[in-house]
Amino acid sequence: MDAKPSVAIIGVGLIGGSIGLALKKNALAADVVGIGHRRESLDEAETVGAVDRSTTDLAEGVREAELVFVCSPVGMISEHVRLAAEHCREGALLTDAGSTKEQICRELAEPLPRGCRFLGGHPLAGSEKKGARHASADLFRDRLAILTPRDGAPREDLERLQTLWQGMGSQVIAMEPAEHDRILAMTSHLPHAVAVALAATLTEKAYPFTGTGFRDTSRLAAGDPTLWNDIFSANRHHVLHSIDAFADQLARLREAVDRDDPSKLKPLLEEAKNHRDALGS
Amino acid sequence: MDAKPSVAIIGVGLIGGSIGLALKKNALAADVVGIGHRRESLDEAETVGAVDRSTTDLAEGVREAELVFVCSPVGMISEHVRLAAEHCREGALLTDAGSTKEQICRELAEPLPRGCRFLGGHPLAGSEKKGARHASADLFRDRLAILTPRDGAPREDLERLQTLWQGMGSQVIAMEPAEHDRILAMTSHLPHAVAVALAATLTEKAYPFTGTGFRDTSRLAAGDPTLWNDIFSANRHHVLHSIDAFADQLARLREAVDRDDPSKLKPLLEEAKNHRDALGS
Repeated sequence: MDAKPSVAIIGVGLIGGSIGLALKKNALAADVVGIGHRRESLDEAETVGAVDRSTTDLAEGVREAELVFVCSPVGMISEHVRLAAEHCREGALLTDAGSTKEQICRELAEPLPRGCRFLGGHPLAGSEKKGARHASADLFRDRLAILTPRDGAPREDLERLQTLWQGMGSQVIAMEPAEHDRILAMTSHLPHAVAVALAATLTEKAYPFTGTGFRDTSRLAAGDPTLWNDIFSANRHHVLHSIDAFADQLARLREAVDRDDPSKLKPLLEEAKNHRDALGS
Repeated sequence: MDAKPSVAIIGVGLIGGSIGLALKKNALAADVVGIGHRRESLDEAETVGAVDRSTTDLAEGVREAELVFVCSPVGMISEHVRLAAEHCREGALLTDAGSTKEQICRELAEPLPRGCRFLGGHPLAGSEKKGARHASADLFRDRLAILTPRDGAPREDLERLQTLWQGMGSQVIAMEPAEHDRILAMTSHLPHAVAVALAATLTEKAYPFTGTGFRDTSRLAAGDPTLWNDIFSANRHHVLHSIDAFADQLARLREAVDRDDPSKLKPLLEEAKNHRDALGS
């Protein structure tokens, strides 16, 4: 393979589009083809310069690709990886940007055809904004990119993706898919669940009485229901566990309030403040 | 009373300081005295022009006041109102800016000395920033100010405070103290409880894996533990009720995830999204 591979990106929304821009800005790809099922999104990706050309035909789009980024919704990633592996260059490396890893890596545990390999990835970057028009070449700068090689994955594949994500400005961490899902259940999927439950609790009559506090805390509930249905489903086990851990803390808080006991309530408020202060603003 | 009253503000942090600036900018007060127990905060309030003069002596500070804003922490408001009523002008009107109203209004149900009256208030404005140096004359512009007159409160008192808050740019709503506390338990105290429980759930090992989602959802947990201990205590009954309503929604979400049932999970995600979208960004 050349130092600069031919790249295909399946799914050119915010993440796929930003990968395209970052690859091009940092001269990490010979060329970039965008693939999607909506012509409109592909035109947007071309307009912002995230891809050199684009097509709605997956088989055609990946034909020259030595490296494929699958940036589809979580529920479609395995299928798109398998489809791409049938039509791209022999021995190509395929990776993804999905928010869950265990299910995808399990579904793709069998060897891919024609010497192609899959190695899962997840850049911890995003925004509530959608679409390539909000894409940025710097979206991944100073952010974590997690790679989840399965046992026995060729060391070169990991190194290639590591170098690539570092080239886009990310810090790279490799971990087990299950470990990724366990941690992300707490740091990403739990806050989403909490925001959803909070927004669902609100009555219409109370809308005028919400301020920045309610809006910040419930912001994630504005996310795409289909996308999040798939994420919760794919990471079901760990999500349930994190909801239970959260429910325990909420019950602790509830009991301290119920007993009107500052000796119980204040330490909990202080403990939470310490955690939150450690994260910065 | 003159059209422009002499005003005293007890507690000149962000809210008290902003009231001072807003009164002065909109020419609503003859003069404004700031009262506090920390000289440093008072100097800050003078520096930003929120008060004309300031003192740590409450009795001396309210001596000429015809209108007193008590902007102390929730747990001290009743005491400060009673103290002020003993030393201010006869027949003065006293109000507050506390986040809970039922307990305060109950504690102040007995007539105040010397013809003074208390009428509770709560401007729905704020910021995570503290101190008069962050105060703004426009903090209350286009925000709600809630007034909670008790039965039999003189109509002129309500009208005076209404006119004053409108003069500072607020929309004014009058309601029962209990109704205020019930609604605010949902729109303000519940998100705080949720943010605290979420931050308390986080393990240190997971810090690097948090993004804007976790940070937004847990932001309120950085609030002052003493202040929030007092708010939860003062509004205990309604806070418990709102935590229970939230816990029901979370349990609904948990069950849908547990059953891996999109026909249960998606409608809940959509319902939450509808509520959240209605609030704006």
